[in-house]
Amino acid sequence: MRSPAQSKAHPGGDTTLTGKAWAGRFSEGTDRRVEQFTESISFDRRLFEQDVRGSIAHARMLAHVNLITAEECGQIEQGLSEIRDELRAGTFPFVLEREDVHMHIEAALIDRIGDTGRKLHTARSRNDQVATDLKLWVRDGLDRIDARLKALQRAFLGAAERHDGVILPGYTHMQRAQPVLAAHYFLAYIEKFSRDRDRVADARKRLNVLPLGAAALAGTTLPIDRDFVARELGFDGVAANSLDVSSDRDFALESLFTLTMIAEHLSGWAEEWVLWSTQEFSFLSLPDAVCTGSSIMPQKKNPDVCELIRGRSARVIGSLATLLVLIKGLPLAYNRDLQEDKEPIFDAFDTVESCLELAAVVVEGASLRTDRIQARLEEGFLDATTLMEYLIVHGIPQRTGHSIVGKLVGLCEQRGCKLVDLTDADFQAAHPSIGPDVRDSLGVENAVKAFRSFGSTAPGEVAKQLASWRESLST
Amino acid sequence: MRSPAQSKAHPGGDTTLTGKAWAGRFSEGTDRRVEQFTESISFDRRLFEQDVRGSIAHARMLAHVNLITAEECGQIEQGLSEIRDELRAGTFPFVLEREDVHMHIEAALIDRIGDTGRKLHTARSRNDQVATDLKLWVRDGLDRIDARLKALQRAFLGAAERHDGVILPGYTHMQRAQPVLAAHYFLAYIEKFSRDRDRVADARKRLNVLPLGAAALAGTTLPIDRDFVARELGFDGVAANSLDVSSDRDFALESLFTLTMIAEHLSGWAEEWVLWSTQEFSFLSLPDAVCTGSSIMPQKKNPDVCELIRGRSARVIGSLATLLVLIKGLPLAYNRDLQEDKEPIFDAFDTVESCLELAAVVVEGASLRTDRIQARLEEGFLDATTLMEYLIVHGIPQRTGHSIVGKLVGLCEQRGCKLVDLTDADFQAAHPSIGPDVRDSLGVENAVKAFRSFGSTAPGEVAKQLASWRESLST
Amino acid sequence: MRSPAQSKAHPGGDTTLTGKAWAGRFSEGTDRRVEQFTESISFDRRLFEQDVRGSIAHARMLAHVNLITAEECGQIEQGLSEIRDELRAGTFPFVLEREDVHMHIEAALIDRIGDTGRKLHTARSRNDQVATDLKLWVRDGLDRIDARLKALQRAFLGAAERHDGVILPGYTHMQRAQPVLAAHYFLAYIEKFSRDRDRVADARKRLNVLPLGAAALAGTTLPIDRDFVARELGFDGVAANSLDVSSDRDFALESLFTLTMIAEHLSGWAEEWVLWSTQEFSFLSLPDAVCTGSSIMPQKKNPDVCELIRGRSARVIGSLATLLVLIKGLPLAYNRDLQEDKEPIFDAFDTVESCLELAAVVVEGASLRTDRIQARLEEGFLDATTLMEYLIVHGIPQRTGHSIVGKLVGLCEQRGCKLVDLTDADFQAAHPSIGPDVRDSLGVENAVKAFRSFGSTAPGEVAKQLASWRESLST
Amino acid sequence: MRSPAQSKAHPGGDTTLTGKAWAGRFSEGTDRRVEQFTESISFDRRLFEQDVRGSIAHARMLAHVNLITAEECGQIEQGLSEIRDELRAGTFPFVLEREDVHMHIEAALIDRIGDTGRKLHTARSRNDQVATDLKLWVRDGLDRIDARLKALQRAFLGAAERHDGVILPGYTHMQRAQPVLAAHYFLAYIEKFSRDRDRVADARKRLNVLPLGAAALAGTTLPIDRDFVARELGFDGVAANSLDVSSDRDFALESLFTLTMIAEHLSGWAEEWVLWSTQEFSFLSLPDAVCTGSSIMPQKKNPDVCELIRGRSARVIGSLATLLVLIKGLPLAYNRDLQEDKEPIFDAFDTVESCLELAAVVVEGASLRTDRIQARLEEGFLDATTLMEYLIVHGIPQRTGHSIVGKLVGLCEQRGCKLVDLTDADFQAAHPSIGPDVRDSLGVENAVKAFRSFGSTAPGEVAKQLASWRESLST
Repeated sequence: MRSPAQSKAHPGGDTTLTGKAWAGRFSEGTDRRVEQFTESISFDRRLFEQDVRGSIAHARMLAHVNLITAEECGQIEQGLSEIRDELRAGTFPFVLEREDVHMHIEAALIDRIGDTGRKLHTARSRNDQVATDLKLWVRDGLDRIDARLKALQRAFLGAAERHDGVILPGYTHMQRAQPVLAAHYFLAYIEKFSRDRDRVADARKRLNVLPLGAAALAGTTLPIDRDFVARELGFDGVAANSLDVSSDRDFALESLFTLTMIAEHLSGWAEEWVLWSTQEFSFLSLPDAVCTGSSIMPQKKNPDVCELIRGRSARVIGSLATLLVLIKGLPLAYNRDLQEDKEPIFDAFDTVESCLELAAVVVEGASLRTDRIQARLEEGFLDATTLMEYLIVHGIPQRTGHSIVGKLVGLCEQRGCKLVDLTDADFQAAHPSIGPDVRDSLGVENAVKAFRSFGSTAPGEVAKQLASWRESLST
Repeated sequence: MRSPAQSKAHPGGDTTLTGKAWAGRFSEGTDRRVEQFTESISFDRRLFEQDVRGSIAHARMLAHVNLITAEECGQIEQGLSEIRDELRAGTFPFVLEREDVHMHIEAALIDRIGDTGRKLHTARSRNDQVATDLKLWVRDGLDRIDARLKALQRAFLGAAERHDGVILPGYTHMQRAQPVLAAHYFLAYIEKFSRDRDRVADARKRLNVLPLGAAALAGTTLPIDRDFVARELGFDGVAANSLDVSSDRDFALESLFTLTMIAEHLSGWAEEWVLWSTQEFSFLSLPDAVCTGSSIMPQKKNPDVCELIRGRSARVIGSLATLLVLIKGLPLAYNRDLQEDKEPIFDAFDTVESCLELAAVVVEGASLRTDRIQARLEEGFLDATTLMEYLIVHGIPQRTGHSIVGKLVGLCEQRGCKLVDLTDADFQAAHPSIGPDVRDSLGVENAVKAFRSFGSTAPGEVAKQLASWRESLST
Repeated sequence: MRSPAQSKAHPGGDTTLTGKAWAGRFSEGTDRRVEQFTESISFDRRLFEQDVRGSIAHARMLAHVNLITAEECGQIEQGLSEIRDELRAGTFPFVLEREDVHMHIEAALIDRIGDTGRKLHTARSRNDQVATDLKLWVRDGLDRIDARLKALQRAFLGAAERHDGVILPGYTHMQRAQPVLAAHYFLAYIEKFSRDRDRVADARKRLNVLPLGAAALAGTTLPIDRDFVARELGFDGVAANSLDVSSDRDFALESLFTLTMIAEHLSGWAEEWVLWSTQEFSFLSLPDAVCTGSSIMPQKKNPDVCELIRGRSARVIGSLATLLVLIKGLPLAYNRDLQEDKEPIFDAFDTVESCLELAAVVVEGASLRTDRIQARLEEGFLDATTLMEYLIVHGIPQRTGHSIVGKLVGLCEQRGCKLVDLTDADFQAAHPSIGPDVRDSLGVENAVKAFRSFGSTAPGEVAKQLASWRESLST
Repeated sequence: MRSPAQSKAHPGGDTTLTGKAWAGRFSEGTDRRVEQFTESISFDRRLFEQDVRGSIAHARMLAHVNLITAEECGQIEQGLSEIRDELRAGTFPFVLEREDVHMHIEAALIDRIGDTGRKLHTARSRNDQVATDLKLWVRDGLDRIDARLKALQRAFLGAAERHDGVILPGYTHMQRAQPVLAAHYFLAYIEKFSRDRDRVADARKRLNVLPLGAAALAGTTLPIDRDFVARELGFDGVAANSLDVSSDRDFALESLFTLTMIAEHLSGWAEEWVLWSTQEFSFLSLPDAVCTGSSIMPQKKNPDVCELIRGRSARVIGSLATLLVLIKGLPLAYNRDLQEDKEPIFDAFDTVESCLELAAVVVEGASLRTDRIQARLEEGFLDATTLMEYLIVHGIPQRTGHSIVGKLVGLCEQRGCKLVDLTDADFQAAHPSIGPDVRDSLGVENAVKAFRSFGSTAPGEVAKQLASWRESLST
């Protein structure tokens, strides 16, 4: 089935018919279309660092328990290191019929060091090997994501500091609601990403249990030392049930969900900044460097990065959907369907990592257009709730106060004026307890100053939060 | 717009045009179709316990900081308790134009105690009120789920103990692979549900931060004490950013994902037991009480509960999808879309809770058909890997050993015999180091006994795991 | 297991142990928790009209082929009609142990007419009965949806006519791009919903094949006439393979996808109108009747209906996800998982139907705020592309023209002016072929008039489209 | 920002700062990270054939309406053909800053033919260009899918013919239900894929409307002839509303859904054949060429292709989810998010196309193990329903007959015998109208022969269906 040219590309193969590691009992080669359909080398080559690392730890353990000699272990380590160098350098040859990265590396090892290489797979199955490699890769990925999250938090903190004292309209239902300090706004995202970092940490903690040693699904009759391997690879513990391990992709799903939450947070922020970049809002100035133009409309400057961050949340959600559907209804233990777990994981990590990176670029480069914001800040009755709370302080029940202020707002709308523009008589007519001092609570500036509750946009409270985050993000 | 009959159903409403809490500035009533479209009382009435509990805590705090008097607080508590009793008894009247459970309860309070009731909503918005209620509901839900998970783990432990010494074929790719103890099999699910319980605990920990006091989105000018409320309601902390709180549904998503993972685990187990219930497998005997028949085929006995558990994982995944899509791309802070969060949450909790309950019923009632399992246990060369490891112990590299055993299996298939039936000459021909003692490693019984690694199906290892779980599930 | 009280609620049951239609071979009753877990009467009662209709057609066929007598058929029809009346009136009693609507109706029929009722299920299984009922329900649903789509198209047509001559900024990337007539904008949605109507028609066409007669999964030995039933129930054909039928939910998935597409279209429109309702855009005036207020902020008027329509697209997508996951990987033929198909279908139809209804209410009640739109219409260089096309007509290559106009826009931005404000010298400096007549192409009014291509916003083209839709939507 | 080396790779670029087609008004280059984040050339290069084809048609139209000369058109065609040849040959150079395939091709054209190349983009935007290219690509894809579906139908037809007369147990709830002819089973899948082909045709029909000429979003002021382009490119019509076109991805979603339905059908079949390949079922023999082995268990032969087909349905569902989420809530008209539509489309087409190809390979190579099937065929009371219908023919109401047969099955289970083994006395005791002739209806062979309804597994009916499909699949 394989042409001579292909055979040449595969010099040190096994002695079996097809060169497959498992071909002993097969009397027929694999259909080329089947090889193409079942291969995973085109994507799982990304695991090579983890595979080599895992194999070296495994070999050391085999030597430690005398299943191989120290010399054999040295040969294996040496061979694997050389292979890793080739893989890093991009000179390692890939061939379809070696299926996956694990078979490629092992076969290359056998090519180099012969029979000793044939001992590496002792007390190990591809199932637990893949699970180990993938856990190592995901663990590295979670660490990178955490660093990106922290960098983005810092970017938001920087934006908060750059826009000291700026007041923004806050929205609910996309309607102007109450005024908030820009710093308070930026801090809201630091909070969200902080929960994401907590989830990353929890996912990492739960992931960090060694699968290797589960072998195919039942463990092994050989005297392996799994704790040794766990220590070598930085795992906190060793999985206690081999059948569970052989079917477990919880760590993949939980990590992917964690990424999805980050993507959700990014999507809301990106939507907001797309809006803020409109002519109508004009809240935001983005540097040319993060915008693009139109091939037909010469005047356009589009907030593409934000749009793409918003859009790419869809592919992360889609990847999570893929993995949830994939795993649903699979009986114990390993099923080949699980090979499909890698691409959505890789894609979600790549997507979220680059979105986090670019979000930081955008946040660092963005400026609030304070003149434009200020010009319309008194629109939308952002001080109405403050007025209502003034009434509450004067003993009026909240519901009654709400109704009174609602009517005053209606009056302003008829007159085309602001609350602060109403006359003393207007206020008295609305309720006798509204005195002229009410004007100290009106207007956006006064409204902001009036806040006092913990977690509010009160300037003092915001300053405390800023100080606290500055501290915790400094290291 | 409302007919007299409808008005009668709404006796103690506010003095505004439509009786809405927010209607002060509106000059026109709400379209009846709009009321029907926007109402949430048909489903959020489930929050009534949490809403009353949250309002009582809020009222106590208002009294604590002197925004209301102790007497007013007493009246409010009394009124709310009576309303709760009516709601529990099912005698509380619901009317469409009161929109949601929060407005219903508050309006009923005002009906009862007048102006004092109008003070309850002081320093509070529906946004932070709903978030608090929902967090309390989800927290209760997570606690119930944890109890159900534990009960199911106990059911699996019981099954493991009932089937002491039974050996099952273990599968990969749905092909017979290696033998495993039934207890080892049951323990695998205990491990999976154990990770689920850890996730439940993490979700609960992260959820347990008080939103109340964020008010609409910016906090309040009133001198509230949020820590007081947190203590009253059993929250571990107080949310630090009001804008974040007003838009945050992380806790809903994370809890829903946690439920989805449980549903995934259940779906795989259910699929397996549907298979085991087939004529072809005949591994499992389910009590009539958990099966149903056919309306046309008189002989049928169907494993409906397992099928439905498998199928219902789809609706949990669908609910998670709904929530992920809902929240994607929403800018700060509250948007009305978020009203749609409750039904998927309620449905997912109900579904997973009942699936866990029924799974325990099934596991408790099920028996392995050991005669049928035993009758075909030697099929499928479950001892082939043990043989390969025998070769490894005799110094043959794993890859070479694999190939040798593969050929011996091929020989057996030709002859229609088992590995143990091969002659000494057959073994010698395969490799000179295979002596007659090889037969101590062959056959399923011997294969199971040969295991020794931690986490394997080795009888001693399984016994240790059983003891450990018996201990930790006993309290 | 059942208490006497429960038995009383179930007077005319079968003579079997549990009263189940399938209980002949069972020696044990069903666990109450299992009954609750497996019942579908709580939601499939919605199929009662279809079930009665299908059963009457089936009975007529049985009489037609002499499997029952004409008199028996008459009794059955009479009995079923009475039961239907009770169901319509809400007086029909439901009991948990009768599982589903089909068993309820059949058992009630046997209660009424005895042994003749026991003949109704001849040559029929619940599998093909449910499939038939559900197809009839979905077919009715598709017809309702089509009517709602048409009504919404008419609402958009009305809006187009009401806003004759109004010019809007058109957007890409949410940035102002080119001017469009409001009528052109409204027509865009008529086009989208037109494709939806085509999809509804295609789904209906493919659905309209009779499943009944497939029986359990293999057909029947009895001399039934399936064409007769198809004619009675308005099906265009008869399904040709009983195994296919027993597992087929294509019609459910395709219909649900069709609904999802409608929800997607609605979600984009709703998002747009939420934006247009902001203080910043102020493009749109919505009647109070479709807005709601805030419980804390007295000035708020929120576009809740649009927000909920946007949000509810998520639950339709979630329902589709549920059904896709449910059906994935199910072998032939019927599996109990399929019981879970109904709730997502019902929910998606209800949701999309009410969203379409409310969208029409909103569109009919909305007015463009032409003064506010007009006031800022010259912002954003909406005429830049027209200017570029002026250059093209004067022989300048498009790419060169694009670059020239880009620079002129830059010049305007520096000066804070519009393109029309540039001097002749500015234009000459940019390119010698720009004469003073260029001003006939500048300004938004001129830009709109300049369009001419088919499908463009050219006033004449838009008028033709309006006329065409007025014609086709008039009947 | 760009290095000299990069500039060299981009020799004939525009005169603008960054060489971007839209850069006229930009005063700052694009950040390299932004270029990497926003580029689409890494995946949209797959559209090059469609892009060249669309551009040639566009150029011909421009010449036809005298916007360019015939000579210019000739130059453009010649240039584009050469570029296409380079792209086919893999020698075309890609550079990151040219963003996408459209800019690459146009820039390469300008490099070759100068100013004439700058005229190609006349009366065209990237928005309508991309939509056109993508529609052409999807249309080609749908045609390939249809051919693959037909080939798979033929493979199933061949399997039906190869297994003439073989009887299989049919299942519901995975329990043995009634006997079916193997041909009937294979025909069920032909029906399913037939509906898929109908959906493909409907999607193609609805897709086949030309977007080009919508320009950016409002059409153009230039005298283009869109019908001319439609004819050149084989479109059936021209889109009537430019705003609609600029935001429309219905065709992508509908095609992706159509693929998802195919994937669903394949997943059920694959699941079934994985089961049939188990030791326990042993229904199926798959050629070694479509199976693989284990790296640790030498005896394994795994049905990997079926497992992967089952698993890959998840990624198609995930791709649909991605696209549904992506498009939800996007206002008119084009938004950059839409760039994300291509990868899920490409992946879904690739996945389904290869799954269909491999499914045909598997079906063609598979054999039913008739000996193993036959050996257990009488298990499971597959003739019970036939017996019930015997009773119906003898005037016993179905429900009564069902109950009688249920009890006879119970009797058989006690005795461990089949229905045919019961004595005349047993039958008489059950019901006096059961005579000795009942045995003509018992046993699986008799049961199959007894069927007669249209669409049933009756041998005559199956033969008619086979003949009909043989006919319609022959061309």
